[in-house]
Amino acid sequence: NWDTGDEMVEKFLDAAARGDLSQVSTLLSHVPSLTNQTGYSGWTALMLAARNGHYHVVENLLSHGCDKFIVNSSSQTAYDIAKFWGHKHIADLLGQTDDGCQRVLLGSHISPQENYFSRETLDRLSGKRTDEAWLEAKQRKPDTVYLMFSNLSPMVSTPQEDNSLCRFTYETVKDLLQKPATVLIFLGGIQETPAWFAFSTDEDAAELLKLCTERNCSFPKMPNRDLLKLNEEEAGIVAQARSVLAWHSRYSFCPTCGTSTKPEEGGHKRICLNSECRSLKGVHNTCYPRVDPVVIMLVIHPDGNQCLLGRKKIFPARMFSCLAGFVEPGETFEDAVRREVEEESGVQVGPVQYISCQPWPMPSNLMIGCFAVAISTDIRVDENEIEEARWFTRQQVIDSLFREASPAFIAPPRQTIAHQLIRHWIGMNANL
Amino acid sequence: NWDTGDEMVEKFLDAAARGDLSQVSTLLSHVPSLTNQTGYSGWTALMLAARNGHYHVVENLLSHGCDKFIVNSSSQTAYDIAKFWGHKHIADLLGQTDDGCQRVLLGSHISPQENYFSRETLDRLSGKRTDEAWLEAKQRKPDTVYLMFSNLSPMVSTPQEDNSLCRFTYETVKDLLQKPATVLIFLGGIQETPAWFAFSTDEDAAELLKLCTERNCSFPKMPNRDLLKLNEEEAGIVAQARSVLAWHSRYSFCPTCGTSTKPEEGGHKRICLNSECRSLKGVHNTCYPRVDPVVIMLVIHPDGNQCLLGRKKIFPARMFSCLAGFVEPGETFEDAVRREVEEESGVQVGPVQYISCQPWPMPSNLMIGCFAVAISTDIRVDENEIEEARWFTRQQVIDSLFREASPAFIAPPRQTIAHQLIRHWIGMNANL
Ligand SMILES: [Zn+2]
Ligand SMILES: [Zn+2]
Repeated sequence: NWDTGDEMVEKFLDAAARGDLSQVSTLLSHVPSLTNQTGYSGWTALMLAARNGHYHVVENLLSHGCDKFIVNSSSQTAYDIAKFWGHKHIADLLGQTDDGCQRVLLGSHISPQENYFSRETLDRLSGKRTDEAWLEAKQRKPDTVYLMFSNLSPMVSTPQEDNSLCRFTYETVKDLLQKPATVLIFLGGIQETPAWFAFSTDEDAAELLKLCTERNCSFPKMPNRDLLKLNEEEAGIVAQARSVLAWHSRYSFCPTCGTSTKPEEGGHKRICLNSECRSLKGVHNTCYPRVDPVVIMLVIHPDGNQCLLGRKKIFPARMFSCLAGFVEPGETFEDAVRREVEEESGVQVGPVQYISCQPWPMPSNLMIGCFAVAISTDIRVDENEIEEARWFTRQQVIDSLFREASPAFIAPPRQTIAHQLIRHWIGMNANL
Repeated sequence: NWDTGDEMVEKFLDAAARGDLSQVSTLLSHVPSLTNQTGYSGWTALMLAARNGHYHVVENLLSHGCDKFIVNSSSQTAYDIAKFWGHKHIADLLGQTDDGCQRVLLGSHISPQENYFSRETLDRLSGKRTDEAWLEAKQRKPDTVYLMFSNLSPMVSTPQEDNSLCRFTYETVKDLLQKPATVLIFLGGIQETPAWFAFSTDEDAAELLKLCTERNCSFPKMPNRDLLKLNEEEAGIVAQARSVLAWHSRYSFCPTCGTSTKPEEGGHKRICLNSECRSLKGVHNTCYPRVDPVVIMLVIHPDGNQCLLGRKKIFPARMFSCLAGFVEPGETFEDAVRREVEEESGVQVGPVQYISCQPWPMPSNLMIGCFAVAISTDIRVDENEIEEARWFTRQQVIDSLFREASPAFIAPPRQTIAHQLIRHWIGMNANL
C-alpha cells in the first residue's frame, strides 16, 4: 500500500482531522492530488473532518472538488459519518443535491458518446398504447404527424445534401390507412402533442410520391447507405419505426401455432387469432417485436498500441472495421465478445469493457460497443466470416480517421458505432 | 487546471525529462501519487523520459506501476514517443506484453462480477453446427453427455442440498431421440471432447425418471425458484439449453408464412418447409433463437446515500428489488433505463452506467445491469407495473443484505443480478 509511506498524505489527513483549515489549504494548493487520498480504513480527509465536526474544512474540501461519494472500508460516506456523530450542519451540507451527481458513478469521467440512430426525439408514451380511444382521437388530429414507409424505406425528400423525412397529415393519408395491407404504428409524441405515427403500405411507390409536396422525394433503395444520411433527430425516429415495421412484415403468423396474427397496442404487439393458442395464456415473447443484441468490439493489442480490424468481402475496397456478432441465448456480452473474436480471427480476448450501444434498424439489431484486450496476437481468420483481419498501429488509425493521403485502410463511416469505437480509442486518455 | 500550480509535479516532470533518476526516485517515495501526473500537453514523466532516451528512468517509473497506456493531447503513448525519437531499446521495453493489459481499459479497477447463469463452462463450438457428419459421429460416442428436459425443466438429482444435472449416455436415450416430438440441440464441448447435447421430450415424466440411476431425481416445477439451486458451472449450461429449447417449443411455425419449420445446425436454426418462403432468401432473424434484452437498474438518489427499489404484487412479502423492463426496438440501454424508471416510479434519471449482464432463461432474457443516478426524487408509482417504490438508505440496505434483525425490506436472492447490483453499490469504493 503506497499510502503508508506517503508522509504528505498523513500530514494532510491529520490537518483535516484536527480542523487545521490553513494547513489543509496550503497543502492542497501545493499538491492538489492529495484531495481524495485515503489513510487507515479508507478514510479521506473529508470523512475525518466530518467525523470531528470541522464545518469549514468540509466546506473547503468540497470547494476543491473532493469526492463526497467515496466510501471507507465500512461502506460509510462522509455524510454517513457526519450523521452518525450528530454533526447535523455538516450532514446537511454533504447531503445537498448538486450538479456533481454524475460522480456517484464510477468511471463517469468517460463522457457518454452519442451514436447515430441513438437519439430519442419522441417520448414513446407507451402507457397510451393500450388506450384505444386516445389513439383513435389522436389519429384524426390535424397536427398529428404520419411517416410513410414502402418496402421498409421511409419517404424522404432531399432538397440539398441531407435527407429529411416527409411528414403527412391525416387528411392526406386517411385512405391509405384503410387499405388492408397497411400496418400503422404509434411512435409517441413530443410532450403528448403532436402525436407521431408511421405506417407501411404496399401501394405503388410512384403514386405515393405524388402525395408529397416536398422537393426531390424518394424511397431510398439502399437502407445501409441511404438511411445514414438523415439528421440525428430523425435517425432516432427511423430506428424505432423501421424496426417495428420490419417485425410486422416478418411476423404476421403465430410462430407457436401457425395461425394469422393481428396488430394490437398501437402496433407494438401482435396477437394470435386462434383462441386456443398457448401464446394467449400469460406473457409470451412471440407477441412482441424482437430486438437482436449484437456485440461489436475494438480489440486492443496487449501492447496497447495496435487494434484488430477485419474486413468482409462485401465491404468497399480497403475498408476495415470492428469485429461483430450476434449474442447467443444464455451468453453474456463479455463471453459473446470472446467467442466471436476467437471464431473470426483466432485471437484470444481477456478483459472486455462496455462503451456504448446503438440501435441499428436493419432490421432490428442493437449494437453493443465494447473495448476488448487481446491476450494472444496470432491471427487465424475464419474465411466463412471475414476475408482478412489485421493489427493496425495507433498512427495508421489516426492517418485513416483524419484522411491523410494513402492511409493503410479506410475506416467505416462516422454513423457506425465501429467508427465511434475506433475514434474513442484514439482519443482515450486515462489521465483525464 | 490544477497541475499548473503544482510545483511538486513540475519538479518531478523536470527530473524525469533530465534523466535525474535519483530525484525521480526520491520524489516518488515521498509522494507516490505523482506517478501519472501530467504537465504541458498531457505529457507524463514516462513520456518525457521516453522522449529524451532515459532508459533507467523509464524502467524505474514502470516498476513504480506508472500507466504506460496514458496518451498525451496528441494521442501519443510513451511507446509512440520513444519510437518516433528512435530510442529503440525504450520502445522495446514499453512494448512488452505484461499482466497489466487490463489497464488498457478505462475504469478497469471495477472488478468484473460474476452472475449466476453467466459462467460459460462449455465451448460452444459453433463452427461444428453445420458439420452434420461430425455431429452425428459425436452423438454416438460413449463419452458424449446428454441432458434431458421435460416441459422445459432439466432432470436434476438432489442428493443433498443443491441440485445437479442428470447426465445420460447415448445408449440410455437413443430411443427417446428417435421420437418425432423430441428436439435435440448441440451445446458444445470441453476442448471438443466430450460433446454435450440437450434434448426435450414429451414422454411421461415418471417413466423418464426411471432412466436415471442418480438419487432423488425430479423435473423441477418452479423454474424461477428451482433453477436457482444449481452450482455455477451447471447454471451456465442450463441458461443456454433452456433458452434454445424454449425457442423450439414456441417457434415451430414460420412467422413469415405460417408453414411448419424444422431444426437445423445442431438445433440453433429452424428453416421454413415452404420452399417459396421469403425467409429462405438471405439471412432472416425468424430462423434464429431470440435473445430479449432487459434493462435492470439500481437508481441512486442524487444525494448518493439512498437507492430506489420497487416491489411487484407477485413478490414474496416485504421483498423489494431493482426496477426493470424490456428494451424496445430502436432504443439504447440508457434510454430504456430512463423510460422504464420514469414509467414505473415517476423518478427522472440522468447518467446511466452499465455494470454487468446476466442471461435469465425464463425463457430467454438477457438482463443488462446498470447504475442510474436520479435527477428527481418524487415517487409516483404506475400501479399496473409495481405495487410500491421507495427510497432506502445505505444503512437500511446493509441491514437487509447482512440479515440484521427486522430489516426495512427483504433483498432479492443472491442468484439475481438485482442482488448483485445492490451489493455492488454498498461495496463500491471510488478510491480503490
Ligand atoms: Zn397461435
Ligand atoms: Zn415461411
